[in-house]
Amino acid sequence: MSRNEEARVRVGVVGATGAVGEVLLGLLEEREYPVSMLRPLASGRSAGSKIAFRGEEIEVVEAKPDAFDGLDLVFFAATGALSRELAPEVARRGAIAIDKSNTWRMDDDVPLVVPEVNPEAVDAHKGIIAGPNCTTIGCVLPLEAIHRAAGLESAVITTLQAVSGAGRDGIEELEAQQAAVARGEAPRPHVFAAPIVNNAVPLCETFRDDGYSTEEVKLLHETRKIMGLPELRVAMTCVRVPVPVGHSATMLLETTRPLDPSDARAALEAFPGVEVVDDVAHDAFPTPRDVAGRDEVLVGRVRRDLTSDRLWLWNVSDNLRKGAATNAVQVAELLLERGHLG
Amino acid sequence: MSRNEEARVRVGVVGATGAVGEVLLGLLEEREYPVSMLRPLASGRSAGSKIAFRGEEIEVVEAKPDAFDGLDLVFFAATGALSRELAPEVARRGAIAIDKSNTWRMDDDVPLVVPEVNPEAVDAHKGIIAGPNCTTIGCVLPLEAIHRAAGLESAVITTLQAVSGAGRDGIEELEAQQAAVARGEAPRPHVFAAPIVNNAVPLCETFRDDGYSTEEVKLLHETRKIMGLPELRVAMTCVRVPVPVGHSATMLLETTRPLDPSDARAALEAFPGVEVVDDVAHDAFPTPRDVAGRDEVLVGRVRRDLTSDRLWLWNVSDNLRKGAATNAVQVAELLLERGHLG
Repeated sequence: MSRNEEARVRVGVVGATGAVGEVLLGLLEEREYPVSMLRPLASGRSAGSKIAFRGEEIEVVEAKPDAFDGLDLVFFAATGALSRELAPEVARRGAIAIDKSNTWRMDDDVPLVVPEVNPEAVDAHKGIIAGPNCTTIGCVLPLEAIHRAAGLESAVITTLQAVSGAGRDGIEELEAQQAAVARGEAPRPHVFAAPIVNNAVPLCETFRDDGYSTEEVKLLHETRKIMGLPELRVAMTCVRVPVPVGHSATMLLETTRPLDPSDARAALEAFPGVEVVDDVAHDAFPTPRDVAGRDEVLVGRVRRDLTSDRLWLWNVSDNLRKGAATNAVQVAELLLERGHLG
Repeated sequence: MSRNEEARVRVGVVGATGAVGEVLLGLLEEREYPVSMLRPLASGRSAGSKIAFRGEEIEVVEAKPDAFDGLDLVFFAATGALSRELAPEVARRGAIAIDKSNTWRMDDDVPLVVPEVNPEAVDAHKGIIAGPNCTTIGCVLPLEAIHRAAGLESAVITTLQAVSGAGRDGIEELEAQQAAVARGEAPRPHVFAAPIVNNAVPLCETFRDDGYSTEEVKLLHETRKIMGLPELRVAMTCVRVPVPVGHSATMLLETTRPLDPSDARAALEAFPGVEVVDDVAHDAFPTPRDVAGRDEVLVGRVRRDLTSDRLWLWNVSDNLRKGAATNAVQVAELLLERGHLG
């Protein structure tokens, strides 16, 4: 980052009061991103409230076009509708929008970036850069590590997703239902399509007519775009589980060349942003509780399928951090490194 | 059951005070199994306590060889060690043992029976009949339904397993940890290798040296034996989730002949013991909460893989009922129907 180490960036955060926004503000502090000015923004409903940043209280202003004047970089950690309306306004002002929502990911003019996988993609930006869905991020790091080691032909993925994937409302719904059950009352679903306490719900987001959830289809298309493998076969089922933070997934991978589990572990361990926790002699494997608050994707249960050359993996990642805010801040760091800011 | 409708069976239940034993006693009542005499048995620790059956309190006697004298049929819903020692004592007395444990399942002289799938297997019994693991039962019904419709080549399965799969101790551990977290305390694991509250733990039972859990390997070998398909390829990862009752699984199935999702739904709906709950227009899918207390395996999320001819299914079953006690009582009913008792 030598070239830009003096750079100071005027930063906006849309959705500053949300679950991801809060983590994002903390990461900008923690990673010492060179923020010269911070402007928290939110929909009209949250405007006027205050957020804390570097020990200061800063008032949240309403997210509307002229609120982006004078900014270099704007993170969107809010609804897709807000991104659709406002990210082009950021680009029009010569600034760069880093969007966490689903809105722009598959747009041909928008790079979809996971810095460990396709950092060079940021260079083609036209003012908007998208980050993938939290589920995709946790899977695509180990997928890329295996792809570089042995070629990736296909993946069969089942995700176990935390309620915070649905934001603060998801966390509050789980907590409210846990309290209801403790009082002997029936849990009432609002955010999710069925009670999530003491349950597993095989629907993340909403159903499409073909029987897939919108969440599931993202995993196919985003993975292909990020890895630059338009023919990659990804089969997936996404399930919501009563976990506050931390998405897990089982992945069965077919590789071009057979890969020993020990070589797979070495390839994963060497990959940036991935940590291997895998020692069956000591019951060591990663869980959502272990990964909450961390930036790495943790991988364990690496083993060969009993009836083929395929490899099983289990991966967990903090869906609010690496799955959202950390990835966005890493993209912001990459923009500095590659001379797009300052 | 006409031939045996007058039959009266003297029944023993080893493990009568456990999680499965309690459900089993309830099912014998509910399904009006012709019990002429009931003898509840347990390890020395629980002997002397009382259980309720048909409105009577019956004292639990210690499970030891001469306690089986005078019985026709003995259910084992206890530890594998007790089955290993005592099931042969039942057979030696000319009675039949129906064992729920892992002990005898892969023994060539012991039929492994799921009545909807391989009822004729009971005819070869030599005094011991095994029921499969609760995880296998929930999967093997839909697998057999699809196999009969289109031929089954392979299955990729990820299970999400309830804590009651580890018996009463598992339920108590989840409840204790939920209470601890509500008090702001750290959950302490005893039964499971990691905290299970608000978490997902990719280890059911114990690890083998090859990186598989003992639970996972059962799913391969038991499924092959029950379905009579010794070459069937089953790839699996088993995960424990904070659900009290009800095992779930995602299954990706490769069939010999392509099968439309609508034909798959029809085949599943027509299969005994299976019920399809699958209507994406109304967010209808089965969850563990829906299946707890029921005897059917519920199946939903039936759809074609986006990049192949394979089929995805989601199935849930009550691991204490169809996964254990119901299957055992169905085997007992089958023994009457096929003239092995009375």
